Amino acid sequence: MRIVILGGAGFLGKKLASELLYRGQIAWKGGKPQVIDKLILFDKIPATGMPMDPRLEIVQGDIGHAKTLESLMEPSPQLIFHLAAIVSGEAEKNFDLGMQVNLQASLNLLELCRQMASTPLLVFASSCAVYGGALTETVDDHSAPSPQSSYGTQKAMVDLLINDYSRRGFIDGRALRLPTIAIRPGAPNAATSSFVSSIIREPLQGKNAICPVAPDTKVWILSPQKVTKNFIHAAELKASDFGESRILNLPGITTTVEEMISCLGELAGKETIDYIQWKPDKFIQSIVLTWPPQFKTDRALDLGFSSDDSVSQIIQSHIEEMS
Amino acid sequence: MRIVILGGAGFLGKKLASELLYRGQIAWKGGKPQVIDKLILFDKIPATGMPMDPRLEIVQGDIGHAKTLESLMEPSPQLIFHLAAIVSGEAEKNFDLGMQVNLQASLNLLELCRQMASTPLLVFASSCAVYGGALTETVDDHSAPSPQSSYGTQKAMVDLLINDYSRRGFIDGRALRLPTIAIRPGAPNAATSSFVSSIIREPLQGKNAICPVAPDTKVWILSPQKVTKNFIHAAELKASDFGESRILNLPGITTTVEEMISCLGELAGKETIDYIQWKPDKFIQSIVLTWPPQFKTDRALDLGFSSDDSVSQIIQSHIEEMS
Repeated sequence: MRIVILGGAGFLGKKLASELLYRGQIAWKGGKPQVIDKLILFDKIPATGMPMDPRLEIVQGDIGHAKTLESLMEPSPQLIFHLAAIVSGEAEKNFDLGMQVNLQASLNLLELCRQMASTPLLVFASSCAVYGGALTETVDDHSAPSPQSSYGTQKAMVDLLINDYSRRGFIDGRALRLPTIAIRPGAPNAATSSFVSSIIREPLQGKNAICPVAPDTKVWILSPQKVTKNFIHAAELKASDFGESRILNLPGITTTVEEMISCLGELAGKETIDYIQWKPDKFIQSIVLTWPPQFKTDRALDLGFSSDDSVSQIIQSHIEEMS
Repeated sequence: MRIVILGGAGFLGKKLASELLYRGQIAWKGGKPQVIDKLILFDKIPATGMPMDPRLEIVQGDIGHAKTLESLMEPSPQLIFHLAAIVSGEAEKNFDLGMQVNLQASLNLLELCRQMASTPLLVFASSCAVYGGALTETVDDHSAPSPQSSYGTQKAMVDLLINDYSRRGFIDGRALRLPTIAIRPGAPNAATSSFVSSIIREPLQGKNAICPVAPDTKVWILSPQKVTKNFIHAAELKASDFGESRILNLPGITTTVEEMISCLGELAGKETIDYIQWKPDKFIQSIVLTWPPQFKTDRALDLGFSSDDSVSQIIQSHIEEMS
């Protein structure tokens, strides 16, 4: 089978690709395992650091360019992971770019999928940033999206499109709303949630990290290891498992910034905590503090998606991957 | 002030126009009454049957044509009522047309509004068809849209856009999710809810009407008189009244097809009921029967929006308007 990962040079895209290549096959749509013949990593920059593998193809291009996307879908893939996005902070600062990539390119992709001879399976990386505002209660599968950012708005719109394109049989879509992914490796990015990884990652490297929110700020997180498993699991479910909605809030765990830092101290030594500088940032707070931290994800759990056991486990996994 | 009604040749557009011309002014955004200098009715067909009025301008054009929409917005209106849509049944049968008008033209409109020197107020006719599926519980202001039609999907997407464009200050938007409007005058249309009006309207004219659903089918309805008042009320609220969300489920009343028919018999004579033919229609049922019939619209009621008192009152008002 032929698989395309859009946003394939991002850290989640590369991690997903590595896992797919390692497994070598996928029990596509709950059926028999199918061998992965071709795996295409598409992004605006070439995916680096990937192993040499005859199945792997790295393609560089602009997803906002209709013709580029069209040629990428020729020959048609059976499975597409759509992870390409302008992240939350950037989409808030550059509205047009966010609309172009997060909405318009996704719409172009869906239209290309609709024209394919065989209905492709599409796994979409949506976000819990579709929720926001004065949400004091726990968010569940019936809670209305209430985005307080353009990024969250665009994700919520594409969720709806994926649901309708699936209902009509144009695609077989699965939209997964991701918690904040922690701990991300590499450098900080323009996501407003970037600090959730920085406050653990940088001190472990003996570098300073800035925490722009108060210690008691709650966050809803999922590890890169688990989200990768969940992406593949989404493709291994039957369409009928989803019932009337292709949109799912992924499981995660609720923690606080201070609990994360406390776990860091326990696992890596109290001195690591000194690398964290507390500098309140109003722009980041204006978005992050609207994200609800409490979720009830019964539907995803019933469908076999999973979260991490604890914050300690998440940090420990990160330490092991980095060593 | 300059007002544009998109979808102005439709029966709701014309009714709204007549009411605005009659009032002559509007307490725009909760402020002092402002005189209506110009009222433009835009639609794909010319609005007919309107009184001669120097304030009134009737413009014919395709809302899906970007240049047409652009010239319509020159000079910029202060207030836009966006009632233009491909109705539910038609958007389900012609997906491309629905996407073009219900989504793309709305997006083009929002972009034009964003470019205006003064932020325009935009009242959008959304729909309770954004809800659907296995909804056994009462829908409230926190219920997630779960459209089971492309029409409902497109309306839910534009709701989100209006909210985000308003949050960013590009427009001052208010998206009203309309119940099924009954009793509509004129001929049946391609809305899947068209029969809700037909079963009352046609018998009153001595004509046969087809009811495609079972007698105990519940419907959530609002009269043309009340929705017109609610449209204007939406423009007369301050932006701050809406808080974090510009999206509202309008109030309505829940009734059944058989209760409507029973009221018809009481008001117009038992013999009128004989004009109703029961012919189950699977296509119409596949959409209408997914619409939730029970709503709790506290937020709209708190903001001063209103519903009808009874089914009898709705039918009586229709009889009076037609005589």
